[in-house]
Amino acid sequence: MNTFGTLFTVTTWGESHGAGVGAVVDGCPPRLPIEAAEIQAELDRRRPGQSDIVTPRKEEDRVEILSGLFEGRTAGTPISMLVRNADQRPGAYDEMREKFRPSHADYTYQSKYGIRDHRGGGRSSARETVGRVAAGAIAKKILSLGGQAQHGTPVEIRAYLTQVHDIAAPAEALVAFPSLAEVEATAVRCPHLPTAQKMIERIKAVRSEGDSVGGIIECRVRGVPVGLGAPVFDRLEADLAKAMLSLPATKGFEFGSGFAGAQLRGSEHNDRFESREGRVRTVTNRSGGTQGGISNGEEIVFRVAFKPTATILRPQQTVDIHGAETELIGRGRHDPCVVPRAVPIVEAMVALVLVDHWMRQQAQCGSFRFE
Amino acid sequence: MNTFGTLFTVTTWGESHGAGVGAVVDGCPPRLPIEAAEIQAELDRRRPGQSDIVTPRKEEDRVEILSGLFEGRTAGTPISMLVRNADQRPGAYDEMREKFRPSHADYTYQSKYGIRDHRGGGRSSARETVGRVAAGAIAKKILSLGGQAQHGTPVEIRAYLTQVHDIAAPAEALVAFPSLAEVEATAVRCPHLPTAQKMIERIKAVRSEGDSVGGIIECRVRGVPVGLGAPVFDRLEADLAKAMLSLPATKGFEFGSGFAGAQLRGSEHNDRFESREGRVRTVTNRSGGTQGGISNGEEIVFRVAFKPTATILRPQQTVDIHGAETELIGRGRHDPCVVPRAVPIVEAMVALVLVDHWMRQQAQCGSFRFE
Amino acid sequence: MNTFGTLFTVTTWGESHGAGVGAVVDGCPPRLPIEAAEIQAELDRRRPGQSDIVTPRKEEDRVEILSGLFEGRTAGTPISMLVRNADQRPGAYDEMREKFRPSHADYTYQSKYGIRDHRGGGRSSARETVGRVAAGAIAKKILSLGGQAQHGTPVEIRAYLTQVHDIAAPAEALVAFPSLAEVEATAVRCPHLPTAQKMIERIKAVRSEGDSVGGIIECRVRGVPVGLGAPVFDRLEADLAKAMLSLPATKGFEFGSGFAGAQLRGSEHNDRFESREGRVRTVTNRSGGTQGGISNGEEIVFRVAFKPTATILRPQQTVDIHGAETELIGRGRHDPCVVPRAVPIVEAMVALVLVDHWMRQQAQCGSFRFE
Amino acid sequence: MNTFGTLFTVTTWGESHGAGVGAVVDGCPPRLPIEAAEIQAELDRRRPGQSDIVTPRKEEDRVEILSGLFEGRTAGTPISMLVRNADQRPGAYDEMREKFRPSHADYTYQSKYGIRDHRGGGRSSARETVGRVAAGAIAKKILSLGGQAQHGTPVEIRAYLTQVHDIAAPAEALVAFPSLAEVEATAVRCPHLPTAQKMIERIKAVRSEGDSVGGIIECRVRGVPVGLGAPVFDRLEADLAKAMLSLPATKGFEFGSGFAGAQLRGSEHNDRFESREGRVRTVTNRSGGTQGGISNGEEIVFRVAFKPTATILRPQQTVDIHGAETELIGRGRHDPCVVPRAVPIVEAMVALVLVDHWMRQQAQCGSFRFE
Repeated sequence: MNTFGTLFTVTTWGESHGAGVGAVVDGCPPRLPIEAAEIQAELDRRRPGQSDIVTPRKEEDRVEILSGLFEGRTAGTPISMLVRNADQRPGAYDEMREKFRPSHADYTYQSKYGIRDHRGGGRSSARETVGRVAAGAIAKKILSLGGQAQHGTPVEIRAYLTQVHDIAAPAEALVAFPSLAEVEATAVRCPHLPTAQKMIERIKAVRSEGDSVGGIIECRVRGVPVGLGAPVFDRLEADLAKAMLSLPATKGFEFGSGFAGAQLRGSEHNDRFESREGRVRTVTNRSGGTQGGISNGEEIVFRVAFKPTATILRPQQTVDIHGAETELIGRGRHDPCVVPRAVPIVEAMVALVLVDHWMRQQAQCGSFRFE
Repeated sequence: MNTFGTLFTVTTWGESHGAGVGAVVDGCPPRLPIEAAEIQAELDRRRPGQSDIVTPRKEEDRVEILSGLFEGRTAGTPISMLVRNADQRPGAYDEMREKFRPSHADYTYQSKYGIRDHRGGGRSSARETVGRVAAGAIAKKILSLGGQAQHGTPVEIRAYLTQVHDIAAPAEALVAFPSLAEVEATAVRCPHLPTAQKMIERIKAVRSEGDSVGGIIECRVRGVPVGLGAPVFDRLEADLAKAMLSLPATKGFEFGSGFAGAQLRGSEHNDRFESREGRVRTVTNRSGGTQGGISNGEEIVFRVAFKPTATILRPQQTVDIHGAETELIGRGRHDPCVVPRAVPIVEAMVALVLVDHWMRQQAQCGSFRFE
Repeated sequence: MNTFGTLFTVTTWGESHGAGVGAVVDGCPPRLPIEAAEIQAELDRRRPGQSDIVTPRKEEDRVEILSGLFEGRTAGTPISMLVRNADQRPGAYDEMREKFRPSHADYTYQSKYGIRDHRGGGRSSARETVGRVAAGAIAKKILSLGGQAQHGTPVEIRAYLTQVHDIAAPAEALVAFPSLAEVEATAVRCPHLPTAQKMIERIKAVRSEGDSVGGIIECRVRGVPVGLGAPVFDRLEADLAKAMLSLPATKGFEFGSGFAGAQLRGSEHNDRFESREGRVRTVTNRSGGTQGGISNGEEIVFRVAFKPTATILRPQQTVDIHGAETELIGRGRHDPCVVPRAVPIVEAMVALVLVDHWMRQQAQCGSFRFE
Repeated sequence: MNTFGTLFTVTTWGESHGAGVGAVVDGCPPRLPIEAAEIQAELDRRRPGQSDIVTPRKEEDRVEILSGLFEGRTAGTPISMLVRNADQRPGAYDEMREKFRPSHADYTYQSKYGIRDHRGGGRSSARETVGRVAAGAIAKKILSLGGQAQHGTPVEIRAYLTQVHDIAAPAEALVAFPSLAEVEATAVRCPHLPTAQKMIERIKAVRSEGDSVGGIIECRVRGVPVGLGAPVFDRLEADLAKAMLSLPATKGFEFGSGFAGAQLRGSEHNDRFESREGRVRTVTNRSGGTQGGISNGEEIVFRVAFKPTATILRPQQTVDIHGAETELIGRGRHDPCVVPRAVPIVEAMVALVLVDHWMRQQAQCGSFRFE
């Protein structure tokens, strides 16, 4: 359904071509200082039309905060946020009313619900993620201040592209935790500049052919306290996996060593413990920042695979709502590669997961202290 | 926490070396005919000591059903199942009381809870999955009969190994849906016999060196009705991803085309629709059986990566609970490769997800029919 | 928190004097025909300023549906509804910023959250119930059509006042199920006209003294299918009790025979079964429409006690946010008796509970049919 | 369903005449010192056969703790508790297999699930509450130590009878918070001795006539911290109302002034604030310990109405499972008045609600402290 989280929850709503999209954040800790501008900044990172490699759809995407703030701070009550839809082009989606677009959700929505807003994919549109990003901006602020207060350093979430199509950044180029500036330096959000250049060229080439490509996002988080995660089912990586696979176009998730880890021996894979900086640390981090589903204080590291955009500007064979075979003529605006715009969305989902687990941890293990 | 599911739920409990392990299944549809023997059969597939490549720990693992059945059928009330622990060796785990085993959950459990049952990993032991498998046996029966009733063919879930260490079954060997007999033919549960032989040899070789290896499980499901999955957050693949990453030792999940899909173009990746067998079908299945997070009636296909067992029979550097560096002398019983025994566990989790989503789908879209 | 329900959920948001109030309904069955006017009609019943016995606060309370509908029907996606706040009088609530109003939520909100929107009670204002009523209008429509489809007669929910202060309608006057017209005939919503007249006079008298009074609402539901309710914890009456006690100013709930039932003997209280109209019926209905927490097809009957409005136009001793004792000078607009306006709110909450349980019942007992 | 709570949860299972009954407590704070004997003590208070006014059913009701404890403390993992059923008399319930007992759950369970364990009411038996009491014993210990740690005094929950049939304790006799010894002094658990004597006589008289009676329990809690409760839906009194109405045989709930409060004026009902003992207190407590759904630090006070036991030793007209009218000959063991044995059950449910809300409060308002 449309609510995510246990204690810190976000409920998103809205269709691509309805009145708007939005989110309600509930369970937010009170007294957090936050301004609309901070939320707007994250929305601007997600917004279409930011560069020449993404969809030219023009959406101003101005967020209006309808509730839950009082004199610049959260009140502990639900925070309702609204973004009006602007760039609606009635008639532009008439073909979709009858025809199922391949590898889109048209057929399954129609089958499940017996009804479907065909305009721009309706609810299945990635436009739905506007609400997630708005909520994530609040979560990021909590993590930043919360980490600061707890151990003197903010929790920082950094996602970036490591691959587009078959162009991958060399592993050695991504050893250090990239700065936000490095990520935002190019429109593809790959912090390794030479790779970023090649990615941009590839995306432009593919777009000129009316085609699309996929890619891979890596995400790292530093400053996470030890102890987050609620085994056995709500392991931290399990909730992150769900968060990622809940995003449109995702096809894979790997945590720490991931699929490559399956090819190692235990003696190669195990993360040896040592005493460092006055606390227990691991020498390596193949575990990816959790053990037994609980954060161990090392960097959280995972990767997400995105398939190529299903919308392409080429004729495709398909079936219509009456079951008859037909041809779909792709046209209009589309992102030849959605992955760069997914970066702030990935970060938002991570922030939502971490705040929720931080609160869960505090509830179970911090409410009472038995000597 | 320890409950999984929204409507059809399972709550597992128990530590490796406590009185026992078990599960409570709630929300079960009433009047399902089921016998203890059917649950026992699945437990037997998971049980240690089945072959010479797994841990020799001897557990009879007899399930006792304490509630929820009446005259051979489910009553719609909670089904409580208990498996007593048998093979307990007091003193065998004394070293673990003080020392954190690398890449195990010892350190994180101690940090999170301030207390930890060190014997055999306590709650973090894979022995916890006994409860999942018992619950999954019930879910499997529901799916089998439910599919039969709805469209004349049972829903079938088949998991199997495609890789151990660097030994992988050739893709072309796994095109057809493998039979249960093919999977169970060898102790490694890889339906491609020549690969299975190599896997067994590799596991034996690694064991003789006191080391361990990981591997990959592929899982396919056929007979799933169209319409399962609850976007935007509870997409079917999102809940499957969470289910898989909630299992011990998992490091990755990929659905349909997975990470390889990120390297394709949209024109290569899209699954063209056609009219076949009187309904809408896709020609290819790179989507993996869902679109927009909702099942489309094609085979569900995904893969899960398992890291090598953390327990190895070699000395390892580590830290003790006082923060002092020390050496851990591995000894005792262990699985050099847990992946074959994970097969019934993967299947169980899939069954739990599918029954839950079937009920959710029925609730929202089948309770009322508005003309 | 601010979400109610398991499958059919409503999340409300908004403060009395913020930008607006609203609700997101999730899990709604698809293809329900519904118009904004149907929701507006329920909001109009709740609206202030309807008669001379309620607060003269002028709120037009126009609902805007932002999502979830497509061509006049629900799409199965979240339905977001917004009502802008209009009648805001900055400065009118300055006294509340510092002083805790007796028997209001000022002190507890301040203590819990460390922050509080003092204007008109902020989130604790009964204005929050706008979102409930809007959601309830959708639920009512589902029940009406759903009952019609299932057994040829709509599910009807009827709440009305039986008491204001010490003026109570005679029991014999309320034997028959009152029509909506009878309830709406007077501003106090008591279907017994002579009692209604006395209630109105009492409310006017009390208002002229700057005081307030409480009252009792009775609610009956007919057409409820047999089988709703999910023991052991989510008994139908348990969820109704929670729904009622979640409303501002409620102090009691009794179901069927209620507190008077505690004074009867078993031989007097038991509802004898008989065969009537081709099905199992009870001769009496002291049970109130459920047995063992599950609806038995008889009328659902319960009563809710409301305390007198805490806002009174008289000086009251209290304490300010610094802990100093002070006097509060009541002034401004207030409802001398909120109970009449609570009638549509009670009905809305009942509708939400019933739709949710209908869907839960269908999920568990209707998804699979085992012979 | 069969799980109660948001963070601190209890899942109960078991039928009256199956293998046993039990509970799984999840989310329990770690390191709580607790022994089986403490849980047993609460079970002994609930146990049948304690005195000559309750059912002579002999159940030893020995609890076995199967998981979640380690060396005398909770481990933060699920606590599974099992009580075997002992006093089973096969054949004693044969009549119930065919006939629906009036005002029991036989008919509704049969209708809802299409199957029913008729022996002793199966799941609908009050025997199910064994699991609640066991879980509540843990919650009570948490509250006791938690209150001690937070403000130097344990949270104390005290329930007792104020009425049986038409025999009520005088209000002035119950002004002071009764001690546990006063409550446990008689078999009816009414702390006012003269009333208790009359109650016992009445129960014996009614029993000799093969009849039964109901009654009222009052419950008070002192030491509750300010700030518990999660508006708007999960108000503290709303969750208490649900908890109480989830108990078998309950027909009403009133909080603070309750139904009598509906007859007061605002000027009479409002609880004036004052500064006392260095903090904000109310002079009176008609609110019952919450305002706006959040605890204000005053005593929590509520009352619960119980109907007379449905089982009576008299012939009653009823209907059988084929719809034919028939007569039911009551016989066997029964409680002529269940209310005294409900006292520890009421307390258990209150403890569960309070611990859950304490943890929720800590999660939202204690995890982060923004200056």
